[in-house]
Amino acid sequence: MTNNEWKYRVAYLGPEASFTYLATRDVFPNEWIIAYRTIPECIDAVTNDMVDYAVVPLENALEGTVPLTIDYLFHEANLYIIGEIKLKIQQHLMVNKAQKDNWEKIEGIYSHPHALAQCHKYLFYRFSHVPLHQTTSTAEAAKMVAENPDKCIAAIGNASSAEKYGLEIVEENIHDFHFNHTRFVILSKHNTRLPIENSDGQPKTMLMLTLPHDDSGALHQVLSVFAWRKLNLSKIESRPLKTGLGNYFFIIDVLADENEPMMKWALEELQSLGCTVKSLGTYYTYNASE
Amino acid sequence: MTNNEWKYRVAYLGPEASFTYLATRDVFPNEWIIAYRTIPECIDAVTNDMVDYAVVPLENALEGTVPLTIDYLFHEANLYIIGEIKLKIQQHLMVNKAQKDNWEKIEGIYSHPHALAQCHKYLFYRFSHVPLHQTTSTAEAAKMVAENPDKCIAAIGNASSAEKYGLEIVEENIHDFHFNHTRFVILSKHNTRLPIENSDGQPKTMLMLTLPHDDSGALHQVLSVFAWRKLNLSKIESRPLKTGLGNYFFIIDVLADENEPMMKWALEELQSLGCTVKSLGTYYTYNASE
Repeated sequence: MTNNEWKYRVAYLGPEASFTYLATRDVFPNEWIIAYRTIPECIDAVTNDMVDYAVVPLENALEGTVPLTIDYLFHEANLYIIGEIKLKIQQHLMVNKAQKDNWEKIEGIYSHPHALAQCHKYLFYRFSHVPLHQTTSTAEAAKMVAENPDKCIAAIGNASSAEKYGLEIVEENIHDFHFNHTRFVILSKHNTRLPIENSDGQPKTMLMLTLPHDDSGALHQVLSVFAWRKLNLSKIESRPLKTGLGNYFFIIDVLADENEPMMKWALEELQSLGCTVKSLGTYYTYNASE
Repeated sequence: MTNNEWKYRVAYLGPEASFTYLATRDVFPNEWIIAYRTIPECIDAVTNDMVDYAVVPLENALEGTVPLTIDYLFHEANLYIIGEIKLKIQQHLMVNKAQKDNWEKIEGIYSHPHALAQCHKYLFYRFSHVPLHQTTSTAEAAKMVAENPDKCIAAIGNASSAEKYGLEIVEENIHDFHFNHTRFVILSKHNTRLPIENSDGQPKTMLMLTLPHDDSGALHQVLSVFAWRKLNLSKIESRPLKTGLGNYFFIIDVLADENEPMMKWALEELQSLGCTVKSLGTYYTYNASE
């Protein structure tokens, strides 16, 4: 394939073989996908027209929202969400092939803090005396194990990083909780949603909202706008406005299309109540293959 | 002072000279306060009767809620909040006294990731080419600078850590945002709130709540219970139930005493709506001296 065949450039939170890479590769199998080091760098790449889209993690089923993504979208960027990718997170224990017969005697385990947390019980019962070391990503941990064949150490990460760095998976699915998924969002400068094919077909709209005043009924009044219209909210979350303790903005996911009449009226009504409200656009969810 | 004069043992998130230490020392000047390495260890120390109280960070005005504190209180512990401490977070740049004349030529800056983030703009404009290094706490960074008098490096942290490790503060208040406070909670096995003296006198009750069903109106209905009674909420936040994406529990702070008749009825009504609701107790806020 030559460069000319790529239609889009897509930034993702790297390095290669990260979970974000897997999500991005699944939805953009034929595009030019480019690893960036941090979430703000991915978002800035779209803002500055270095790429057409960016894929960044938004929420994990165990760890909750990724605050950096939400805060950067609210405070620093002006982008739209044009699609969402849901990926099952499976963590495996992997060692250098030179050490595959010694893996039960490993002397150190490397991974991203979230991956270590997701395997907390496994590590506690199976390797309670083995020191844990934090890395900036699960792929980075795999790379370190690959580069040290003489050391009896292990990494925790996905199958793709084991493959990329030629490691041996010695225990599969060591994460403590089932149903561990992560949501990734696809960001663009333009509010033109990705096509509905291969998606779950359920439109979802993300709103960022600040309340007009801070009394007992303000949030209740906002939710009334949706409730009596039977507009279902799949998520509501508060984040600091950074103007002082107790001042928040809200992120609300509504299971409806922003162009439906009911949604348009709801958004107008919120504004007339004195709320500052911004729609990040309507999008569909793609389930990444496992 | 001898051991017999201490009435209580209080665990706090260490090490000594951490921000949690400052908050704890302010409210418990004459008690036996003991540093623990992690938030779960502080909480477990109360559960296992190693200490009477624990002080842990709950929320920062810039970074938001400390997820580990909320999640551990919901999923793993059964404790009460008996008081809250509000502390102003002031970050300073400090160097070894041997390097105090060379501080403008520093070759590395060490601190906790949150402190580095809180000084992001200062660092960007003043030291954009100086590498930043993460440490597990601001006090740890100060210790490292103290132990390396021959290196031209700096730490970011509070005045107490500069004092403890004999460092020179070369720039004061380098954090980007004013109004940067952190809320710490005082945890106990028993629901016996701390006395009202020196507090702000405003009772606050923290509720942890799961919804009975997941339709458009569930959260709206819950908020109605408070709204028509004019019970003011100072915070609402969602966190994952860890049973799958899209399943949350809510943390609600109500500006009222759990023993007021209106609050008792509200809690009963929530239960009859099918909510699972747990009160972590009513408490007052203490403003730590700066």
